Amino acid sequence: MNRKYVIGVDIGGQTSKLGVVDARGNILSQSTIRTDTHEDVQLYVRDLAAAIRDLAEHVGGMSFVRGIGIGVPMGNYYLGTVENASNLKWGGEWKGSIPLAELVTRETGLPVALTNDANAAAMGEMAYGAARGMKDFIMITLGTGVGSGIVVGGNVVYGHDGFAGELGHVVMVHEGGRQCGCGRCGCLETYTSAVGVARTARQLLAESEQPSLLRSVDADAITSEDVCKAALQGDAVAIDIFNFTGDMLGKALANFVAFSSPEAIILFGGLTKAGDLLKKPLMEALDRYVLSLWRGKIKVEFSELPASDAAILGASALAWEL
Amino acid sequence: MNRKYVIGVDIGGQTSKLGVVDARGNILSQSTIRTDTHEDVQLYVRDLAAAIRDLAEHVGGMSFVRGIGIGVPMGNYYLGTVENASNLKWGGEWKGSIPLAELVTRETGLPVALTNDANAAAMGEMAYGAARGMKDFIMITLGTGVGSGIVVGGNVVYGHDGFAGELGHVVMVHEGGRQCGCGRCGCLETYTSAVGVARTARQLLAESEQPSLLRSVDADAITSEDVCKAALQGDAVAIDIFNFTGDMLGKALANFVAFSSPEAIILFGGLTKAGDLLKKPLMEALDRYVLSLWRGKIKVEFSELPASDAAILGASALAWEL
Repeated sequence: MNRKYVIGVDIGGQTSKLGVVDARGNILSQSTIRTDTHEDVQLYVRDLAAAIRDLAEHVGGMSFVRGIGIGVPMGNYYLGTVENASNLKWGGEWKGSIPLAELVTRETGLPVALTNDANAAAMGEMAYGAARGMKDFIMITLGTGVGSGIVVGGNVVYGHDGFAGELGHVVMVHEGGRQCGCGRCGCLETYTSAVGVARTARQLLAESEQPSLLRSVDADAITSEDVCKAALQGDAVAIDIFNFTGDMLGKALANFVAFSSPEAIILFGGLTKAGDLLKKPLMEALDRYVLSLWRGKIKVEFSELPASDAAILGASALAWEL
Repeated sequence: MNRKYVIGVDIGGQTSKLGVVDARGNILSQSTIRTDTHEDVQLYVRDLAAAIRDLAEHVGGMSFVRGIGIGVPMGNYYLGTVENASNLKWGGEWKGSIPLAELVTRETGLPVALTNDANAAAMGEMAYGAARGMKDFIMITLGTGVGSGIVVGGNVVYGHDGFAGELGHVVMVHEGGRQCGCGRCGCLETYTSAVGVARTARQLLAESEQPSLLRSVDADAITSEDVCKAALQGDAVAIDIFNFTGDMLGKALANFVAFSSPEAIILFGGLTKAGDLLKKPLMEALDRYVLSLWRGKIKVEFSELPASDAAILGASALAWEL
């Protein structure tokens, strides 16, 4: 058996990260391509295939690669498709449903399995990260959007159609909620993603005259990193932004716990860099709103894996099953 | 093997229903005892054991019974205990955690398995009812309280500690929500249980002077049945009460779908007698608030089994595994 490596691909709204992985979970080489520069998915797939071939060269070429695992927003494990992904700009021939696994197989000659990016991250966390040894946990990814991977009894929950675990699109505010990319209003993602934090910043800055380091940044260009930096310097408005964000996330997590009673909730993605700025208000809201039998019992942990590694490793784990 | 029958017990807030069941799912005989007349669980267990022995007589006596399955609010499958059940009045020696399985074994000499009453109902529905052949569905019980049994990939979700599926205690209203028996405010159960419907009735009647058939009932004594009867006679206030209830339940279900992507949601319990009075506003809210990929795709069905049968059959299914 020469095919002793797999490729893991993590497709995000802006960039796609990929790596070649051995059976022990070492990422031997990795690279990045842009996701958002292609309007046509076929051109994207061509770029991706080229990057995959380049990576494969590091382990002796494509004949040593067993298969490709892909984590992608709205990826469907059962169908190998990407459905209506509101954060991806791909159009072209397929509007609603893109047969990504098939397209990548056609360009590379290798078998492909794909799932939701957050499900892939959960698999990576279970195999190599903070959820090692856990059978029941929820992974929440706080990136451009908010994703989730739910593990029950050691298995990722795919549901009837393969789309289970869209917790970023749980509606938190039913009246007057923020417009979401999904077409509805009030989704968790509009408040607790990196983009959501920037929206909160613009809102709080507009609602008051309170002095803030953030006022030196062009309002439209504020990022969650700006807010984090300001909060770490003690900026009161920036701290309030994280209090609001953590509170909203804690309220959501309290309800998720009532669903699957997880041992832990693992948080992953750019926003976790805020550390206790996010976690403290989150834990307060979780404790206040969770059913008493779980109060103080649910671990909330940040991913122990570097963001890109977890996603690549998780996606690659899919490929071993091919 | 003489032990070819099992006993299923469904413990509700007011009454406990039990039946002796054969391997083909026939309830050969059943009976009822009061749950709420005992402050001490040991006295309740003594009554229950007597009722179990009476039932067993119909199939030749206790030596023909293999075991007892119990569905009970806050029943823990892993531990065989009942934890902090806010709808049960039992106190006595055990305050927080009642080792009910052990107590019943001690009184009857038979092995006992127990789970949440709603999980038991879900097992009954999967084996004999509206969820036959389904691997992914959510059972919502609309009784004195609101319970849930979640089935993923053909298995009941118990979670890390055995308490998964407490969807009646998902917080729907974070500010100014109704006081719940669990100690918090705004739980789904305070709005969409039979008791919740009566609370809505009192609220709507107090908020307006609108004529209603319900004004002939003492406000404190109004039941969900009164509201249902009035609504079926075209009473506008009563119809509004069900519109409010269905809307709240539909909003909750839309979020549950984002969690486990079920093929169907099965509704069970007294409130389902309201039929389309409940289902129509429920479906409208579900369609409005669910992520577009599921819009129009989630079946919502009423249980096909008589309420007592489903719970007894589900509980009895546990006993076959003993």
